[in-house]
Amino acid sequence: MTANSRYRSRAPRSDDGEEKDYVGFATLPNQVHRKSVKKGFDFTLMVAGESGLGKSTLVNSLFLTDLHKDRKLLNAEERISQTVEIMKHTVDIEEKGVKLKLTIVDTPGFGDAVNNTECWRAVTDYIDQQFEHYFRDESGLNRKNIQDNRVHCCLYFIPPFGHGLRPVDIEFMKALQDKVNVVPLIAKADCLTPSEIKKLKERLREEIDKYGIKIYQFPDCDSDEDEEFKRQDKELKESTPFAVIGSNTVVEARGQRVRGRLYPWGIVEVENPAHCDFVKLRTILIRTHMHDLKDITSDCHYENYRAQCIQTMTSSPDFPSIQLANIMHGALFKLL
Amino acid sequence: MTANSRYRSRAPRSDDGEEKDYVGFATLPNQVHRKSVKKGFDFTLMVAGESGLGKSTLVNSLFLTDLHKDRKLLNAEERISQTVEIMKHTVDIEEKGVKLKLTIVDTPGFGDAVNNTECWRAVTDYIDQQFEHYFRDESGLNRKNIQDNRVHCCLYFIPPFGHGLRPVDIEFMKALQDKVNVVPLIAKADCLTPSEIKKLKERLREEIDKYGIKIYQFPDCDSDEDEEFKRQDKELKESTPFAVIGSNTVVEARGQRVRGRLYPWGIVEVENPAHCDFVKLRTILIRTHMHDLKDITSDCHYENYRAQCIQTMTSSPDFPSIQLANIMHGALFKLL
Repeated sequence: MTANSRYRSRAPRSDDGEEKDYVGFATLPNQVHRKSVKKGFDFTLMVAGESGLGKSTLVNSLFLTDLHKDRKLLNAEERISQTVEIMKHTVDIEEKGVKLKLTIVDTPGFGDAVNNTECWRAVTDYIDQQFEHYFRDESGLNRKNIQDNRVHCCLYFIPPFGHGLRPVDIEFMKALQDKVNVVPLIAKADCLTPSEIKKLKERLREEIDKYGIKIYQFPDCDSDEDEEFKRQDKELKESTPFAVIGSNTVVEARGQRVRGRLYPWGIVEVENPAHCDFVKLRTILIRTHMHDLKDITSDCHYENYRAQCIQTMTSSPDFPSIQLANIMHGALFKLL
Repeated sequence: MTANSRYRSRAPRSDDGEEKDYVGFATLPNQVHRKSVKKGFDFTLMVAGESGLGKSTLVNSLFLTDLHKDRKLLNAEERISQTVEIMKHTVDIEEKGVKLKLTIVDTPGFGDAVNNTECWRAVTDYIDQQFEHYFRDESGLNRKNIQDNRVHCCLYFIPPFGHGLRPVDIEFMKALQDKVNVVPLIAKADCLTPSEIKKLKERLREEIDKYGIKIYQFPDCDSDEDEEFKRQDKELKESTPFAVIGSNTVVEARGQRVRGRLYPWGIVEVENPAHCDFVKLRTILIRTHMHDLKDITSDCHYENYRAQCIQTMTSSPDFPSIQLANIMHGALFKLL
């Protein structure tokens, strides 16, 4: 684009004299767009679910990264003694000039123990800690370089083997539902036939409804969208919970090199919509709703946390002298 | 755009197999763009300067609105007794689907009194009050519908008649410089010849520098812009302080109907770059830097105010019991 057309594109001049009715603030979204590109983005995605359900592989497939290059796999004995340990990986990726600082919060080992009581505790504690850090930072004096580590989305992996939700799945999602955007997935869907997937999805949707589990609600598309777009949007949403397959291997299928899994009976292609919902998940998670996930985190989940904090503190008998000091600890620690 | 192309535009598919290396987060700026359009924008512009310098007319010309349809002009006697009175006008305007809630803060009557000592006081108090409201609101429990009335920019009108800045101009701008983005303008520039404008601009730039007046600094354009764009950007910045002419009247010039002023010796066209800097001001204020003005307000001016508040409160002898309560008054008032 030449400089002239750039200036023109910001302040279009039309031949029919419309220009004199044009103020130019219609460029505001472009100004926001430009600034956001300059600043870069960040996104924190949590994956949760039992070991061995392909959490890391799916994330690698989604973001074309390699999370655990040198991960050491644990044997059964090690796994049993292992507690829920939170691991954080940050990668800086760039695509078409757009920079993304992607943080993956992995919760390896969950569900490996025989007794899984309160197995979600470490995860909810982790989420709360990030909120607390943010609360302290945004109450502080210097807010210029606040690191936002709040978790924007949690992909919850449901095993494909059962006949619906297990008690641990219900407990886990319910513990998380008011703190983070939960997106349930059917893991390793290449072990299910299309009719089995259909049945399991129906079952899961019913149970999610029945147990009052609040999963992330993809917002309605704008009413001014055309019918075809609305139909596609509806189809995407009706495919939840997405049945996914991940793969770190590139195989040759129909003359093309694709991410897939090579079975004696055929090739499973991760990005083939007839094989699984991977592309749907990627579309809705990254290409259309990543920003909404961030907004809901900030405007709902974090605001709920903050309101609870303030209410707890102000309802304490020692209020206001001591508890208030806690509220303002960010500012105070930096001052005193 | 059809639904298919919409989905494609968010998740482009190329023929050369590049798709398999494309994650799709490059659509993030578009997601931000879309959401910003949906949410709408707001902008608060303050105009300050002596009566009769064409402040309202210029704003009308900039935004194609009519601020004071039924304004009653005061005579000299009324004007002398008049104090600096702040008037706020809000209009909802829309352009190409982009909604803008524009608030104009007018400071009529300034400078009309014979003794103008501390004439800026009411203006700085007004700006501080907006900061205080915002501070209280953002410390409060419910932050969903915070009204942001912070002043994003102050156009300061310098009379074209003098030979530079008057003491009152210096005092006024210095009183405002740490609270708001000050953009100085040479008002009613149709009474100056091009060489007079050039001389006055040089003089004003020297004096602004000499007296350490901090006016809004248009940020440098990105280093990756092409040379022609950089040249145009430089030219815009070198035209400061912009010499402007406003008009509420549409006249016929060279066969076209334009905003202008009809003199016996010719027609002054507001939007003719050879006649004045109106188009430059509009370009930089609305079409390229409106969002930056908002960012600087929020990230610098408001943050300075907030830090000062917290520091004043925490350095008080009664700290922390009483003063802390003040800091949190937003939250407390809503709770107790």
